[in-house]
Amino acid sequence: MKIAVINPSFNETTKSQIETEAKKLNFKIDFYKNEGEASGHISDADIVFGYIPSIVSECKQMSWLALPFAGVEVFLKPRVLRDDVILTNSSGAYGLIISEHIVMVLLMLLRKEAGFVKGQLEHVWEAPVWQRTIKNSRIVILGCGDIGGNTAKRLVAFEPKEIVGVTRSGKVRDAFSHYFNSIENVSNLENVLKPDDIVIMAMPATKETNKLMGRKELDKIGANGIVINVGRGQALDQELLVNKLNRGELYGAALDVFSQEPINKDSKLWDTHNLLITPHIAGKLTNDYTIEVCVKIFLENLKRFAKGEKLTHVVDRVKEY
Amino acid sequence: MKIAVINPSFNETTKSQIETEAKKLNFKIDFYKNEGEASGHISDADIVFGYIPSIVSECKQMSWLALPFAGVEVFLKPRVLRDDVILTNSSGAYGLIISEHIVMVLLMLLRKEAGFVKGQLEHVWEAPVWQRTIKNSRIVILGCGDIGGNTAKRLVAFEPKEIVGVTRSGKVRDAFSHYFNSIENVSNLENVLKPDDIVIMAMPATKETNKLMGRKELDKIGANGIVINVGRGQALDQELLVNKLNRGELYGAALDVFSQEPINKDSKLWDTHNLLITPHIAGKLTNDYTIEVCVKIFLENLKRFAKGEKLTHVVDRVKEY
Repeated sequence: MKIAVINPSFNETTKSQIETEAKKLNFKIDFYKNEGEASGHISDADIVFGYIPSIVSECKQMSWLALPFAGVEVFLKPRVLRDDVILTNSSGAYGLIISEHIVMVLLMLLRKEAGFVKGQLEHVWEAPVWQRTIKNSRIVILGCGDIGGNTAKRLVAFEPKEIVGVTRSGKVRDAFSHYFNSIENVSNLENVLKPDDIVIMAMPATKETNKLMGRKELDKIGANGIVINVGRGQALDQELLVNKLNRGELYGAALDVFSQEPINKDSKLWDTHNLLITPHIAGKLTNDYTIEVCVKIFLENLKRFAKGEKLTHVVDRVKEY
Repeated sequence: MKIAVINPSFNETTKSQIETEAKKLNFKIDFYKNEGEASGHISDADIVFGYIPSIVSECKQMSWLALPFAGVEVFLKPRVLRDDVILTNSSGAYGLIISEHIVMVLLMLLRKEAGFVKGQLEHVWEAPVWQRTIKNSRIVILGCGDIGGNTAKRLVAFEPKEIVGVTRSGKVRDAFSHYFNSIENVSNLENVLKPDDIVIMAMPATKETNKLMGRKELDKIGANGIVINVGRGQALDQELLVNKLNRGELYGAALDVFSQEPINKDSKLWDTHNLLITPHIAGKLTNDYTIEVCVKIFLENLKRFAKGEKLTHVVDRVKEY
């Protein structure tokens, strides 16, 4: 049987680690840097470990697609992926790195740091501005999986007033539960939110999360409220957020995901007041730790696959994650 | 007896809180926004609560100077402050806010965030870059008082490989000791440092801390090493740091303090490669929490002063902090 691994971030050490395991299990293995390089060579691959939306139709023989990312919505669209292909993701590899991103942008918003970076570019010694602290703030985290849980763990150390988790089930994994002061159901979001809240959005793109943060929700957190979105762009009323920021009706926002990506060069998003933009990089696979976890998940599943056992990280195509 | 309070950041609520306490203790009280406003009116003040380097000589009757900051070196220079004036500082009011600054700039360096802020200003959707994580990093904190201790507390939640504290005594306060994996003596710094270390400098300006991070120390942490200084500029060989950064011999640095402040508009510091500059704002008194602690320290001491008791936060003019 044949494995195709498609990833631009794997170095020789990582590749050799994967190769060694694959050989032990009697798999043939080919490495490709990207979809372009793989195209034309993967029709006979039984297993694909990579992100392959543009060449998925070439994979005639594929029985397992292992994604090195957590977001799967591209592959759940009708006629993209055959129903009999097992789809697994790398949920768990990104929570930690994304939680570092979230704490960074939160502190940058609270301390109005983008102004100081701009000051440095202009060689200006800026005057101090009024700042908020995580200390004593109320934080609401939408989505309490790997990202939300790791974020709560880190934020607790900053002594916030309270951390409220919001989930679709009203429950949270045991490993993370003690970092939250309470867990609420997403259907009740409008009532959970209070003035001055810091809202962190880390939910996948599903029907239920569509424009979850809309007018009522943004109105509730008010002019001292903060919104951070690292989940999916459609979970937020982006147009309304931009208008509110430009009118000073929010303290600030940080978006790593957008309703359309990449953002056009002439989009008004770039110059929106107190909006911090990152180009969907919160969880990019470009650091040693994430690669390590990602490969670990794949190799564990490869052993299970070879033995005909049930895989971990299998995506539920009905639940959409 | 008369108190002069000089502070631009106190609002009406804070002022009225101080006034109420002062009246209870039978003190007269005057508020001024800054030194310019206070000048000419404070020769009869017995107590001054403010930062007054330019008008300290006017304070003929002052018996207690309460500083709203932690750094005291200006007042320890010969002939600046009479020997019989009790000098107290607000050590403890800034550790928390400065620790938020430190975590922010550390994450910004690790994730090369300044490039993304620049990208936003230029409307560019940047490609991801190779990033480091706090997770699995080794962190060395120079100075384990209120700043270093609060920083260690927050960083532990990010699961670093190890946090090493470095102090002049080789000891650390009980409240913070369990956040450090070990405590080393500053005289041994060169041997404590290892390749890839993140070095956080939070020490006051004393003779002992002069150019503490010099050539040997910077060589030890190497091309993947990171330096953050929020203490005093003279504790670091700034010229050497800049040269090393521009030659790619360090991963990055964040400086909030400099050998001369403010930095000149044509200084090469501004454009130094992978250097993050903030204009001595890590602990600026412009947030509710810091003001609250600062005022609490002052009012507790005011009660003690009224009763003729020993004050807290008294600066040891020999130890210089």
